Amino acid sequence: MKDVIRQGRLGGERTHDIESFLSSMEADRFIAEPDLLVDMAHLLMLVRQKIVTEEIASALMKPLLRMYQEGVPTDAFDEQYEDIHAGIESGLTREAGSEAGGRLHIGRSRNDEVATCIRIKTRSEIFDQLHALIRLRRVLITRAREFRDTIMPGFTHLQHAQPTTLAHHLLAYEQAFGRDFSRLSDSLARVNLSPLGAAAFASTGYPIDRKMTADLLGFDGIVLNTMDAVAGRDTAGEILAADTILLTTLSRFCEELVIWSSAFVRFVDLNEIYCSTSSIMPQKKNPDVAEILRSRAGSLLGEFVSAITITKGLPMSYNRDLQDLNPHLWRGITGIRRDIDLLAGMIRTARFETERMAEEAGKGFSTATEVADQLVREFDIPFRTAHHIVGHAVRKGTMDLNTLDEAAIEVTGVSLSSRGLTQIIIDTALDPAVGVNIRRWPGGPAHSATEQAIIERERVLADDETELIERVSRVEEAISRLIKEAKRIAES
Amino acid sequence: MKDVIRQGRLGGERTHDIESFLSSMEADRFIAEPDLLVDMAHLLMLVRQKIVTEEIASALMKPLLRMYQEGVPTDAFDEQYEDIHAGIESGLTREAGSEAGGRLHIGRSRNDEVATCIRIKTRSEIFDQLHALIRLRRVLITRAREFRDTIMPGFTHLQHAQPTTLAHHLLAYEQAFGRDFSRLSDSLARVNLSPLGAAAFASTGYPIDRKMTADLLGFDGIVLNTMDAVAGRDTAGEILAADTILLTTLSRFCEELVIWSSAFVRFVDLNEIYCSTSSIMPQKKNPDVAEILRSRAGSLLGEFVSAITITKGLPMSYNRDLQDLNPHLWRGITGIRRDIDLLAGMIRTARFETERMAEEAGKGFSTATEVADQLVREFDIPFRTAHHIVGHAVRKGTMDLNTLDEAAIEVTGVSLSSRGLTQIIIDTALDPAVGVNIRRWPGGPAHSATEQAIIERERVLADDETELIERVSRVEEAISRLIKEAKRIAES
Amino acid sequence: MKDVIRQGRLGGERTHDIESFLSSMEADRFIAEPDLLVDMAHLLMLVRQKIVTEEIASALMKPLLRMYQEGVPTDAFDEQYEDIHAGIESGLTREAGSEAGGRLHIGRSRNDEVATCIRIKTRSEIFDQLHALIRLRRVLITRAREFRDTIMPGFTHLQHAQPTTLAHHLLAYEQAFGRDFSRLSDSLARVNLSPLGAAAFASTGYPIDRKMTADLLGFDGIVLNTMDAVAGRDTAGEILAADTILLTTLSRFCEELVIWSSAFVRFVDLNEIYCSTSSIMPQKKNPDVAEILRSRAGSLLGEFVSAITITKGLPMSYNRDLQDLNPHLWRGITGIRRDIDLLAGMIRTARFETERMAEEAGKGFSTATEVADQLVREFDIPFRTAHHIVGHAVRKGTMDLNTLDEAAIEVTGVSLSSRGLTQIIIDTALDPAVGVNIRRWPGGPAHSATEQAIIERERVLADDETELIERVSRVEEAISRLIKEAKRIAES
Amino acid sequence: MKDVIRQGRLGGERTHDIESFLSSMEADRFIAEPDLLVDMAHLLMLVRQKIVTEEIASALMKPLLRMYQEGVPTDAFDEQYEDIHAGIESGLTREAGSEAGGRLHIGRSRNDEVATCIRIKTRSEIFDQLHALIRLRRVLITRAREFRDTIMPGFTHLQHAQPTTLAHHLLAYEQAFGRDFSRLSDSLARVNLSPLGAAAFASTGYPIDRKMTADLLGFDGIVLNTMDAVAGRDTAGEILAADTILLTTLSRFCEELVIWSSAFVRFVDLNEIYCSTSSIMPQKKNPDVAEILRSRAGSLLGEFVSAITITKGLPMSYNRDLQDLNPHLWRGITGIRRDIDLLAGMIRTARFETERMAEEAGKGFSTATEVADQLVREFDIPFRTAHHIVGHAVRKGTMDLNTLDEAAIEVTGVSLSSRGLTQIIIDTALDPAVGVNIRRWPGGPAHSATEQAIIERERVLADDETELIERVSRVEEAISRLIKEAKRIAES
Repeated sequence: MKDVIRQGRLGGERTHDIESFLSSMEADRFIAEPDLLVDMAHLLMLVRQKIVTEEIASALMKPLLRMYQEGVPTDAFDEQYEDIHAGIESGLTREAGSEAGGRLHIGRSRNDEVATCIRIKTRSEIFDQLHALIRLRRVLITRAREFRDTIMPGFTHLQHAQPTTLAHHLLAYEQAFGRDFSRLSDSLARVNLSPLGAAAFASTGYPIDRKMTADLLGFDGIVLNTMDAVAGRDTAGEILAADTILLTTLSRFCEELVIWSSAFVRFVDLNEIYCSTSSIMPQKKNPDVAEILRSRAGSLLGEFVSAITITKGLPMSYNRDLQDLNPHLWRGITGIRRDIDLLAGMIRTARFETERMAEEAGKGFSTATEVADQLVREFDIPFRTAHHIVGHAVRKGTMDLNTLDEAAIEVTGVSLSSRGLTQIIIDTALDPAVGVNIRRWPGGPAHSATEQAIIERERVLADDETELIERVSRVEEAISRLIKEAKRIAES
Repeated sequence: MKDVIRQGRLGGERTHDIESFLSSMEADRFIAEPDLLVDMAHLLMLVRQKIVTEEIASALMKPLLRMYQEGVPTDAFDEQYEDIHAGIESGLTREAGSEAGGRLHIGRSRNDEVATCIRIKTRSEIFDQLHALIRLRRVLITRAREFRDTIMPGFTHLQHAQPTTLAHHLLAYEQAFGRDFSRLSDSLARVNLSPLGAAAFASTGYPIDRKMTADLLGFDGIVLNTMDAVAGRDTAGEILAADTILLTTLSRFCEELVIWSSAFVRFVDLNEIYCSTSSIMPQKKNPDVAEILRSRAGSLLGEFVSAITITKGLPMSYNRDLQDLNPHLWRGITGIRRDIDLLAGMIRTARFETERMAEEAGKGFSTATEVADQLVREFDIPFRTAHHIVGHAVRKGTMDLNTLDEAAIEVTGVSLSSRGLTQIIIDTALDPAVGVNIRRWPGGPAHSATEQAIIERERVLADDETELIERVSRVEEAISRLIKEAKRIAES
Repeated sequence: MKDVIRQGRLGGERTHDIESFLSSMEADRFIAEPDLLVDMAHLLMLVRQKIVTEEIASALMKPLLRMYQEGVPTDAFDEQYEDIHAGIESGLTREAGSEAGGRLHIGRSRNDEVATCIRIKTRSEIFDQLHALIRLRRVLITRAREFRDTIMPGFTHLQHAQPTTLAHHLLAYEQAFGRDFSRLSDSLARVNLSPLGAAAFASTGYPIDRKMTADLLGFDGIVLNTMDAVAGRDTAGEILAADTILLTTLSRFCEELVIWSSAFVRFVDLNEIYCSTSSIMPQKKNPDVAEILRSRAGSLLGEFVSAITITKGLPMSYNRDLQDLNPHLWRGITGIRRDIDLLAGMIRTARFETERMAEEAGKGFSTATEVADQLVREFDIPFRTAHHIVGHAVRKGTMDLNTLDEAAIEVTGVSLSSRGLTQIIIDTALDPAVGVNIRRWPGGPAHSATEQAIIERERVLADDETELIERVSRVEEAISRLIKEAKRIAES
Repeated sequence: MKDVIRQGRLGGERTHDIESFLSSMEADRFIAEPDLLVDMAHLLMLVRQKIVTEEIASALMKPLLRMYQEGVPTDAFDEQYEDIHAGIESGLTREAGSEAGGRLHIGRSRNDEVATCIRIKTRSEIFDQLHALIRLRRVLITRAREFRDTIMPGFTHLQHAQPTTLAHHLLAYEQAFGRDFSRLSDSLARVNLSPLGAAAFASTGYPIDRKMTADLLGFDGIVLNTMDAVAGRDTAGEILAADTILLTTLSRFCEELVIWSSAFVRFVDLNEIYCSTSSIMPQKKNPDVAEILRSRAGSLLGEFVSAITITKGLPMSYNRDLQDLNPHLWRGITGIRRDIDLLAGMIRTARFETERMAEEAGKGFSTATEVADQLVREFDIPFRTAHHIVGHAVRKGTMDLNTLDEAAIEVTGVSLSSRGLTQIIIDTALDPAVGVNIRRWPGGPAHSATEQAIIERERVLADDETELIERVSRVEEAISRLIKEAKRIAES
């Protein structure tokens, strides 16, 4: 068995080290199926353009279809081949003969072939990620509705800051993941274009039809300039960056789940299937899934760094370095769907300890802002002055009438009770529920604002899902047509 | 002079080390002007909502407008203040008195204030980058039209591969920069939203109007959930990533300019203003601007890495770590406009050595693909067989009739001249101009395809520019209205 | 005023954009003083080698010494100069005349000049960092001695795991920072070598003496091969990596300080000078210094990424890209000394809440391992079986004799009380102090092991400090001799 | 088959997604063999300390030894186990019974177990890398000796700068790789220490002997503090950084090989086994191995970034995130030996085109520095003036007597021929060989300096190799003793 491409041109006996170093096989398992689609679309175009005969096309289409249905055979992945394209072409040639097999590569090159496969696989992963984001956002909205009156402390600097609700907290993440959705969705306008027909980089002298193959493969159009079509990898960078950003948001949520499930906090009791115990400490129930999910942003960031560093400073057009970018791309993007679903699962099955949350909501003077605001509103004191009075009272350690009066005298020379402050006014301001429900402007934690936010976000979610489904359908229908056409040729 | 925020609450004498470590002043000079706009819009809203009186608003608006016109005074940037917000508020309080100054911060927090400033400044930088990309792409198209018949060698693996044209090469970059344009442009949908009114993260009890301030500041809407509004920094990551990707493409062009201006290649003679000489070697004319531009992608990548690593794993909502992200953001994005313009200037003023390009176009058997293709077309040989025959001939070192015949006999057992191959057929295939002009499909290098591509890309460019101008105008008009309103209040 | 280097060779009028883009002035303020030392050493060598006359040397040495004593004048930093070397040389030439000034650059180039300056400044920063690490480690050991019997819960996965002591925890960090010390210290063997005399990369035809300048500047030797001497930047990468790693350890400690000072945990009360309050929430005392310190690892990591990405793939020898590496180097390494000292200050002044620690030490079944171990030791049960029994008991929620018996029957079919287990045995195993003091092997938390560890680590610290002081003295003495020699020449 | 660790403590049925997400099996194949060594050493210690009986030890040692000799069986790698430690322990328990198997984990935890395995595997990879660096440096020195009089142009900014020799160029890399050697070698002082006995982080109540296991496993000592022992991962960062830096140097050499093998330059003809051809362009001989090697630094950089980002901000002691660091470590460091050997092979088998080098050596005015220097030496003109005169001449395009005279008059008002300049003086200065051989100071390109450098570097290489061999032997002997002891126990 010999590599169809190398033979005849280059001599020397390669060591296993070199063969394995040059081979992209390990990463190419991600594009084996896309490669079959590309082969079929290219072949259909060649026959429609009368560049190859129906007879030749039929001889090649049969084994292509079989591989598509049964899977690419193992020996096509042998590291003696430089890549899966050579592996598949070699297999086809063995089966259909060199008269036919030797014609599949007319009017194309591995450069445009691999670029097209990368875009097909990337598109497919983006679709999966978008679907998972829909699921996650739905879980978040559902649980937000469940907990829209669950008061809990909100934090800044990991310090109790002001009371809020669990719904408000969950909706913060839903909104952030909504941006991830729109970011990935926008990228499709750049990703879902066909480089096929660019050949090595200068297109070809054969009378190919680039738009035809683009249509057959479900692309929205072609990457026009053929040099850019084979040399550009910015879309790989874009997806890796978008996924890094997504996982960064996800890491923040997981950090909270780790903290919330600590013995100190006990705001959440994670379902045991997401936890592990210790090999030595029998009492342990560790939030391992949340921990590894937290680390994932680090992995993606590394893949993005590799992709950029590999591409930086490469002259036009194709350079072999670009092959080494692919493992980073696939390692980077193929686990994201699962990561999103794991978070969704954890949230969906988590038991939130609403009593603990309520218990903590008013602690740590976390309603002190409300007291200061109340002073401003009742007595028309400048905000900064009220801030100082309440700050003094905090240092004294209580928030009753006496202490506030003392503080007011220190700051302004005048007591507040003399201006009408009563313990009842203070107690009302100190009630977390009061503080939450007064914050009723768009996006705030008050019950009414939360209701509005849920309605608004459900609408956005529904729109996002509809658009996604339409987009995916268009691609699926194109692929169905391609397979149908391929079968017609195979049987001709 | 004392920090208005710290006083009263926290004691102890800070060392200069601590003050300077905590102060964000160095980075805050980028948001001093946005901060004035935010102050004015917030104040306008407070007065319209009757939260402060016209009198107080007027007292504050006067110095705000003066700073806006004359620049923020130096002492507002003193590192004794933690940030520019404290610096400006302290200045206003000195001038307008604490009765007025102490009311500016009603219903907001530095958390939403800084988040709003960041978005205003980011929006402004994106606009500048988009304008620069328009200029760069125009230069590329203009020069592509100039060189649409300039034949040059195209490269893969830095080896002469197939002939193409300089126009084809330039248009490859124009197309790539077009994707950068659309990527940055898409980001505005996520960036140009107002966090103002989120206060610390839970909004406020004062009857604020978030949509009003959003309109006054030229935003397209609000960041709804207030916790996400102050805690999210994914848009910073998005812009840094988009700019990293942009500079990666730019680095590739600069690598080519460095190679092309080497004594070996001499495809380009860069204008001397973009070059330096040596302190020791008097003959040197070094492409220094291209070299530093090449390195810039490395700088941006580092800023992105920092931004992500700083944000990863932070719990809700605001944490002080986020302050440390800002220098990375500003260092990252504020030089990009200049970088793009420098490349545009180099390309615009470069003397391309078209004779040297022509001289090299046919070298290195770079038309061998065309010979193989010709064999396929003329004699209906499988492509892979033709590839092998020509590969054998290359190893023999010439591409004449005899050699090809010998090679054909080795590979297939049959000579090609016996099937009708003549030296004329070979010579035609070897002519670079023939090879280029046969590649006339969309995006190819042929004269006709290039004409078409130029028309198509000019259309895209015009559309992009129109959309950009409209977008920028909307923001500028909003700011004009804001200033006008502010003046009205100041003079009331 | 004209750049001495550019004039005569290159024409054209540069825009401010280009001048400022090419100028390294902003970063060069870090090497202005090293540059004076290099100038002096080079000049001394030139005169000793009789390449310039004493008269010329004296004319140049005078202004050099003055700048060294009074500081490099501001106009040497003007961005019209490409770098500080040109700025200083231009100033010298104005003062000493072009007959003298024009001779300073004999036998060298900016390439070796800047490489030498970088190593001098880097060496100096490493020394400062090593001194700071000595201080930090001393604080940690001192406080560890103070808290060697302070029992606290140890954590894995942020869950209460097993009891340990605060001393054990503090010594963990001391040991880790000890590795940072040795890592940085090792790097000096590669950093403290002189590139001077390499000129552009091929050394020079003048009869220079490289070892002489190396000695004068306090280097341990020369970077032998002159091409590598100007082109290599791996030592910059090494320091940035070492500092990134150091800050990563530091970030972990700061994460703990943030968690420990939360209202949930209250293990530490940070001194107020390391904290900030809120602009809106008057009760807040936020651990801001710890937060920003936590983020610093992200900043350093970015600088390392930039340094590597900029250097990667650059051919020999000097390329202008390398200039763009310097800002990353200086931004990266010049803040580390301060970061270390801030952590040391926070630890030194922190009030550790030992009662809270004791209160939490036995919570969350954190002594369950000890119970399992006790079962193994008393009743010779396999460890894994004991682990299962105790795990069952934990699920039941208590750890008394009845529950353990029930659990034992479920797992093994046999009760433990029947084999002699008593409540007293259980209670002893559950006592955190017992669990801690039984762990008395090297490096464990028991009192005796801690005493031993403190002695051992004090010894290592003392050795490290002695070696550092010797190293620094050698350099300082060399520089003193250099200045003395320079004065002698100046006055000759 | 059930996971020995989870059973009894945690319920719920895990999905395949969760099991596979939590399992570290894919990465753990790198530490399966180290894990056996750790098991054996731990068991030997347990029996010597009389913690387990000889009988139990023998029952466990037999299958351990068999796995060590025959390889760990496939079913130990099943993803139902969380890691290889659980996989191996489960297998042992099946074979030796739970009475024995359940005792292997006495006095340790997976936390110290995996930390020990990581250090054993890392040590082994460092040894392999150091050996490969010895081979590479030897090749470089050998070929440098071969080409010590091969004159070639040296480059700065990819422009012809000054003539040098191929030997000088090769020795630059040898020296840089020598620093990589010393950097990796230094790291062993931190890597080759044993964490074993730290257990979960607080060591154990069993009377273990940490130094004994350290000796048995070939460590130079123990990681004293047990919390740091399981939680620290800075040594992983250190190796990844060192390897990133190494590959960055390697990438520079490969960039040169790519440029040198281009049709423009033709300085090197790479052996065909290191090249590939094109699927479409039959003439192509692409330097693919050099290209992928060039990209490798990007891959390593990404792994380092991931490792740091994952570790940053993790509180003490073990967190599951650390598991996710391991794939980055193994992917990062296990290919480096091969990368180094591939470069060594390419250099060893490369045909350097010495005639092409000679042809280019004097081009591009690359001896102009020598002309300027000659003017300084002959006529005592300030260097900067000579630099300007020669710069003017370059602009005029020739370097003959007339042109230099004209230039001198323009710059100084006086001709040079009037001061004695002759064409012969100029021609001598223009001869590349003269320019090279005058640069005879340490590290310069002159014949004599090169001879000296080769002697010096061979000495360093020999010392490095001797030290390495001794180090490796010490470890190998320890492991031999361990296996011998293990056999004795097994057979007892």
